[in-house]
Amino acid sequence: MSAYSNLEKQFSRLSALDHASAILSWDEAVVMPQGSGEARARAMAELKVLRHEILQHPRLPELVDKAEGSISELNPWQVSNLKEMKRVILSAKALSPDLVEASSLANSRCEQAWRSLRTENNWKDFQPLIEEVILLIREEAQQRSSASGLSPYDSLLDQFNPGLTTSDIEDVFNPVKSFLPDLIKNIESQQDSFKPISPPQIFSVEQQEALGLEIMRLLNFNFNTGRLDVSAHPFCGGVPQDLRITTRYSTSNFLEGLMGIIHETGHALYEQNLPSQWTHQPVGQARGMHIHESQSLFFEIFLGHSRSFLSFIYPILLKFLADNPEHPYWDFENLYRNINYVKPSLIRISADEVTYPAHVILRYEIERDLISSKIHSRDLPEIWDLKMTEYLGLSTRGNDRDGCMQDMHWAAGAFGYFPSYALGTLTAAQINAHMLRTRPRFEDDLKKGDLSSINHWLKTNIWSQGSFESTNDLLLRSTGESLNPQHFKTYVQQKYHLGGK
Amino acid sequence: MSAYSNLEKQFSRLSALDHASAILSWDEAVVMPQGSGEARARAMAELKVLRHEILQHPRLPELVDKAEGSISELNPWQVSNLKEMKRVILSAKALSPDLVEASSLANSRCEQAWRSLRTENNWKDFQPLIEEVILLIREEAQQRSSASGLSPYDSLLDQFNPGLTTSDIEDVFNPVKSFLPDLIKNIESQQDSFKPISPPQIFSVEQQEALGLEIMRLLNFNFNTGRLDVSAHPFCGGVPQDLRITTRYSTSNFLEGLMGIIHETGHALYEQNLPSQWTHQPVGQARGMHIHESQSLFFEIFLGHSRSFLSFIYPILLKFLADNPEHPYWDFENLYRNINYVKPSLIRISADEVTYPAHVILRYEIERDLISSKIHSRDLPEIWDLKMTEYLGLSTRGNDRDGCMQDMHWAAGAFGYFPSYALGTLTAAQINAHMLRTRPRFEDDLKKGDLSSINHWLKTNIWSQGSFESTNDLLLRSTGESLNPQHFKTYVQQKYHLGGK
Repeated sequence: MSAYSNLEKQFSRLSALDHASAILSWDEAVVMPQGSGEARARAMAELKVLRHEILQHPRLPELVDKAEGSISELNPWQVSNLKEMKRVILSAKALSPDLVEASSLANSRCEQAWRSLRTENNWKDFQPLIEEVILLIREEAQQRSSASGLSPYDSLLDQFNPGLTTSDIEDVFNPVKSFLPDLIKNIESQQDSFKPISPPQIFSVEQQEALGLEIMRLLNFNFNTGRLDVSAHPFCGGVPQDLRITTRYSTSNFLEGLMGIIHETGHALYEQNLPSQWTHQPVGQARGMHIHESQSLFFEIFLGHSRSFLSFIYPILLKFLADNPEHPYWDFENLYRNINYVKPSLIRISADEVTYPAHVILRYEIERDLISSKIHSRDLPEIWDLKMTEYLGLSTRGNDRDGCMQDMHWAAGAFGYFPSYALGTLTAAQINAHMLRTRPRFEDDLKKGDLSSINHWLKTNIWSQGSFESTNDLLLRSTGESLNPQHFKTYVQQKYHLGGK
Repeated sequence: MSAYSNLEKQFSRLSALDHASAILSWDEAVVMPQGSGEARARAMAELKVLRHEILQHPRLPELVDKAEGSISELNPWQVSNLKEMKRVILSAKALSPDLVEASSLANSRCEQAWRSLRTENNWKDFQPLIEEVILLIREEAQQRSSASGLSPYDSLLDQFNPGLTTSDIEDVFNPVKSFLPDLIKNIESQQDSFKPISPPQIFSVEQQEALGLEIMRLLNFNFNTGRLDVSAHPFCGGVPQDLRITTRYSTSNFLEGLMGIIHETGHALYEQNLPSQWTHQPVGQARGMHIHESQSLFFEIFLGHSRSFLSFIYPILLKFLADNPEHPYWDFENLYRNINYVKPSLIRISADEVTYPAHVILRYEIERDLISSKIHSRDLPEIWDLKMTEYLGLSTRGNDRDGCMQDMHWAAGAFGYFPSYALGTLTAAQINAHMLRTRPRFEDDLKKGDLSSINHWLKTNIWSQGSFESTNDLLLRSTGESLNPQHFKTYVQQKYHLGGK
């Protein structure tokens, strides 16, 4: 067996551990009995250490060296796979097994406690747990930094989006920070004339689930190898051949659950259409969370929030949900306004599409400063409140449930993830602009609910490409340019009828 | 770290793989999308190989030798644990990793196909799948036999019940085979006078589930770390700290689902009350499947089928299920007769308590001869039919769904398991006899639904003992004698008012 083939075999074996971890995570969030958390945390930590030990075996770097020595024998996908394997091996090498185990346990405990402590708005009991997570992630960032030469925070960014740096982020976030306040102000002043009417009824979970399943079908989610469930925080989990998305339902507002489903279906379509022949290899995985979020947000915003797609699903919404379709709430324009009403609010995942990037930039700035120790965990509520007040004019004082405790990412140890959401929004806008420019039938397809051509483009250009090329190369090839935040600005200006360029 | 402590650490790590495999198996049977089977089969096979590789590492036998060299430093539980660890290591050493992987894949595929092929009564498509499983299990039995010196079939028995041999089994099955036909005939002739009335209503799944949960609560199932679900074949899965039982509901007969729940709750109580301080070590596991089935069958037969316990749950049944409690079906005596009606039938898991052992003996004889190649897989339907006709007077010709395809055990590669069921029935009768003899309040407790004293005895004598002693030592200590099939005979004679001893 060649060195390269041997490496493929090792990674194929490792992917069984990833399969197990993915299903165990889904199980923990969806069906696990409440008292089983400690045992699960321990099992998941042991699996992580096992994976880590396998990746730290000295024969792997030797095999990489050998495979690189005869790289001319490999085809382009194998070359990319070798590059990705090397990245994974070096990433594992950077961390001590003790830290991997300690982090996994601390993250599991904190995430499990977060589920009830958030509901109780209980910052006091949450703070020591998140403090432990932060101390460990700082140590992880240090160890990664020593191995990679990147700054500590950049070395965390790199885990979710290979190659992404603070400098790249600021290049796109700075323009957004400068144009966003005016956009929001202008839309708000214009919106004063029409306030959307609230729902006149209760939406049962059964109704909403039936609707969600129907919409997933229309978007081409593959139910033969996937399912929909409910969890405290919507997510897309499982593995490409066994894809599990979740949402949560509010009986007073069906849009929350439905938009969660459309968002997660975007993630799911990416996973379900990754190159199946590379499914157990690093090159067969999604390119990174920036591109992943661009897919979910493309579906959520550029389908879910669009007048064209809404006109297609409008009769379906009425059929599945409306107790009294004559009520003015069910007027098409009112629904459209409900979905596209721009108003600064406290919760990221239910934020409108225009204020959304502000929520992400706030989190990015805070986590960057947490890693560099500029901020202490005990100061989180205050800093959150200050930034929310500055960026969106809203205070979260005494309301940590809707402030710094609202997301599970930090509780789960996922520092360096948040920027992906705003990068994803901006990228989705860029893809949308590209489609409008190059595909004359785009709007018509949405109006007819015909996703075949749109999904074909996404599959060909993005989904089927796995990790074959870098994020920037992928964007250049598929949209003709690197990430450009102006597309988002233009989209907002046009949609909300604002003047200017 | 001492050699013994080092071994404990290795086994503790391994138990995370077992945790993952247990939850993945539950997931596969209960929630996994149908099209995800192949990917799951592969992941489970890889996890098995990984476990196998870890157990085959040469340092483990070295550590065992060292630990045995200083065995005087160990306490009695550590000594038992060392013995069990050695058994697990030798058992792994017996098999080649290729065989482990091939068997796991073949078993998963066959079990997954079984779910639909059984429903379709499709022996033709099932036969090549089970043939592959049988070829591999024969090879496994050979490899195990070479390593252990046991006969091939005994080496399979040993996996489920350490120390159990064909000779032990025949010592108890032969008396049963000789007394059972007369017992059945005598009960049947006596029963002619009263035929139980069938249910006059449909039982909704929701009703039955609510009842099942209530009964599980009464039996002291710990819902904080466990749950109840539905699957094609009832089972008890998960891990002690996250225990998952399943049943299946028939809307025309609630007893099937309820008895499934009581049976699996017996398994669950054993698992939930294993010694928690040894939970990640071999000595902390249940003693074997013979004792495991004795617990489930003690609950199913000696509680679920008893006049005393039924009189306690009778008002609960009426409350949860009866549309018209005045209907003669709901008469107490009629319910009791429905539960205790002895009649040869085709399906093992819904068989009455008297004919049940015949179902098991039939399977034991067939699998023993399959392993020794006396029987070919293509002859299974015919041999099944012949033996069913001989033992219970019923033909399964052309009805393989209710014949040799009814259980999933062989499809899943579990050869050597079936004897545990009949050994479990006989042992449950022995425990029941011991309780009647030594615990004057036993019947009264059942009438009051007070399980505290009964569960305390089981916990102290069996559940909390894990694998500390051998099966025979456990029986001797807790009931005063080795397995004695006469207790079952006496129980049947008394319950069904038959003369003789």
